[in-house]
Amino acid sequence: MWVLRRKIRWLPTNPEFDRLRVVLVATRNPLNLGAAARAMSNFGFFHLRVVNPYQVAFREARSAVGASSVLKNAEEYQTVADAIADCALAVGTSAVHNREVQHRVYPPQEGARIIRRKLRAQPVALLFGSEKVGLSNQAFSHCHWLLRISTRADHASMNLGQAVAVCLYELARTAKAAPRMPAAKLASAHEVERFSMDLLEALRISGYLQPASGSPTDAKVRRLVRRLNLQAQDADVWLGMLRQILWKLRA
Amino acid sequence: MWVLRRKIRWLPTNPEFDRLRVVLVATRNPLNLGAAARAMSNFGFFHLRVVNPYQVAFREARSAVGASSVLKNAEEYQTVADAIADCALAVGTSAVHNREVQHRVYPPQEGARIIRRKLRAQPVALLFGSEKVGLSNQAFSHCHWLLRISTRADHASMNLGQAVAVCLYELARTAKAAPRMPAAKLASAHEVERFSMDLLEALRISGYLQPASGSPTDAKVRRLVRRLNLQAQDADVWLGMLRQILWKLRA
Repeated sequence: MWVLRRKIRWLPTNPEFDRLRVVLVATRNPLNLGAAARAMSNFGFFHLRVVNPYQVAFREARSAVGASSVLKNAEEYQTVADAIADCALAVGTSAVHNREVQHRVYPPQEGARIIRRKLRAQPVALLFGSEKVGLSNQAFSHCHWLLRISTRADHASMNLGQAVAVCLYELARTAKAAPRMPAAKLASAHEVERFSMDLLEALRISGYLQPASGSPTDAKVRRLVRRLNLQAQDADVWLGMLRQILWKLRA
Repeated sequence: MWVLRRKIRWLPTNPEFDRLRVVLVATRNPLNLGAAARAMSNFGFFHLRVVNPYQVAFREARSAVGASSVLKNAEEYQTVADAIADCALAVGTSAVHNREVQHRVYPPQEGARIIRRKLRAQPVALLFGSEKVGLSNQAFSHCHWLLRISTRADHASMNLGQAVAVCLYELARTAKAAPRMPAAKLASAHEVERFSMDLLEALRISGYLQPASGSPTDAKVRRLVRRLNLQAQDADVWLGMLRQILWKLRA
């Protein structure tokens, strides 16, 4: 009479989750790598990528007794561009504290909806920066928009493992609530980056940018390109047109 | 023109949050005590109570450099009953794995709603068990119901600090549903058409299009441009860049 067996609701296997890449950039603490991998496994996300990790931390975390298969299978990259090359959407995370924000910033609930819609068809990268400074402006320049967990102004910076857990919880929580219409397929990060590089060259040759203008300007142009909806079906055409214009400018 | 200052939404001070007591029972790892306190501070909950902690861990966590005021002000109790004595509602958390569940079990979103309603008038305790075994049946017996984060059946057990973060995130998130981010303002049809015309001219000068190519080709390029999400904030910059490239091509 006393024993009520409650039906437990487990997260269902979700093939769309297989398209998410959690990208940890310049992580220093092995415990945070382990914690991020654990939350991924809890919520059903298995593709971890690490960019330029503190090597001791990465080796230590990977070889720890009980390291999850997520961590053991983590892929290592030298640059953010390489780590997200196959992704159609790159989303940065940030406490957005004392810095100027030049991207659109979404709260997790709304951001998760957009990510889930995109995951139906194409890989999406979710980037987390280092414990001390978060993502660099250079890393941000590869992102389409930012996701920010709302915190107190007096204590904005979250622990890395906890931030990963909250974001993935939100992605898993809204899994069922997502609308049905698949969004247009977007160009890959690799194509978008090629377009950005060619555009930068065209802007330098034409005199729009100074030859010596540096990375802040490049980052601005990259953000500008990422705010375009460059679609997969159109990427080759845009790249071809730009190549031809470049060829003529160089002549 | 380049710098967009985004308005950051901080969590507002919420007097109701002052009535929540986060109760950590038999915690062993000082890092988890620290992580729980940090998440509390991030989300605006300041009353931490520890029941029968592993003493070394508690002392260590409390005296750590940079320990938050939440941790420094934590209150210590010998029993769960003492720790929750002033609370009108006690909610246990559990992975509810291989054990019989004799309580009602709510997902975080629904549980958070009930907790928030109660917090308007009276203190509420949210209990978290030890890293290895969670809350004991004895501790559960003090709880009105359980809150459970939905995870994969194959990896149900969450890290303690991450579980605290997710629960408090959910409590803070539902405190006031965030207003929706307005959709990005798109460029006007006039600007889009100017961009299309300039692009067509650049494509002709560069030889990508034949000089005599006619309206079907023009229409294709126009559609291509319209599939970009040319945003109002960026329209002038794109037009300026294209003008400069055109000027150089004509030279």
